[in-house]
Amino acid sequence: MITNTRMLHFRDIRDPRNAAYYGHLTPLTAGKEIPFDIKRVYYIYGVDASAKRGFHSHRELEQVLICLGGSVRVHVKTPFEEEIVTLSKGDEGLYIGAYVWREMFDFSEHATLLVLASQDYDEQDYYRSYEAYLPDAIAYFSQKTEESNT
Amino acid sequence: MITNTRMLHFRDIRDPRNAAYYGHLTPLTAGKEIPFDIKRVYYIYGVDASAKRGFHSHRELEQVLICLGGSVRVHVKTPFEEEIVTLSKGDEGLYIGAYVWREMFDFSEHATLLVLASQDYDEQDYYRSYEAYLPDAIAYFSQKTEESNT
Repeated sequence: MITNTRMLHFRDIRDPRNAAYYGHLTPLTAGKEIPFDIKRVYYIYGVDASAKRGFHSHRELEQVLICLGGSVRVHVKTPFEEEIVTLSKGDEGLYIGAYVWREMFDFSEHATLLVLASQDYDEQDYYRSYEAYLPDAIAYFSQKTEESNT
Repeated sequence: MITNTRMLHFRDIRDPRNAAYYGHLTPLTAGKEIPFDIKRVYYIYGVDASAKRGFHSHRELEQVLICLGGSVRVHVKTPFEEEIVTLSKGDEGLYIGAYVWREMFDFSEHATLLVLASQDYDEQDYYRSYEAYLPDAIAYFSQKTEESNT
């Protein structure tokens, strides 16, 4: 996975006697499965298969993305790395930390993208233009690499 | 609505130029749309249409239930009142407070029941037997009624 992202694997609690009947339950606790306080939750649904959403990065906000009821692909990138992650299972989440640009696409029918966020909404924390993001992200990841090499 | 329950209405953010394309987004912030700190999130999915879940109450835990991708019905009751609530929209949630017994049923295909909870999991906070719940709930709601009458 690229810097400041990682896959999280959650529990999938099923009744061993009758899993198809009672279905699945996944619990996510702040500070345990989710590596931050859950200040905000949002969900995106009813997105056309050809639509793309996202196109932004955050200075500090951390998020976990989970796809329920279908699948979605997430393109995460920095000035130095990129990756496309497919989310399609309730027991896995994509952690995205600071200075990662994200674009979500290929929403399937019935897909809901659930996002847990570490902070309240703050427009000042957003980069909505890749041109504004790029030099700051280069500086951020260059310093991060330097620090990890010392 | 019965005591210690209420419907919450959330924002449904759509792009006014192209709602069918970009879909819907609902944000839920702890202390704003959600009347408590969000300590835990869980979701239930893949439940058979004929299955019932729930069958418990809590001493203190508060929850908000939201149905994504389909519909579900929730039977909430106390020793003195009961109601059946249908959840089918991303912009509405059912708040359930202390000492309310709940049973969820009629899960539709593709339905995910998302639950936001005010506390970490604590088995001591559960009533899992209606027989154990009943006398304590009678005492709780009797005192609550008395307090609201004075």
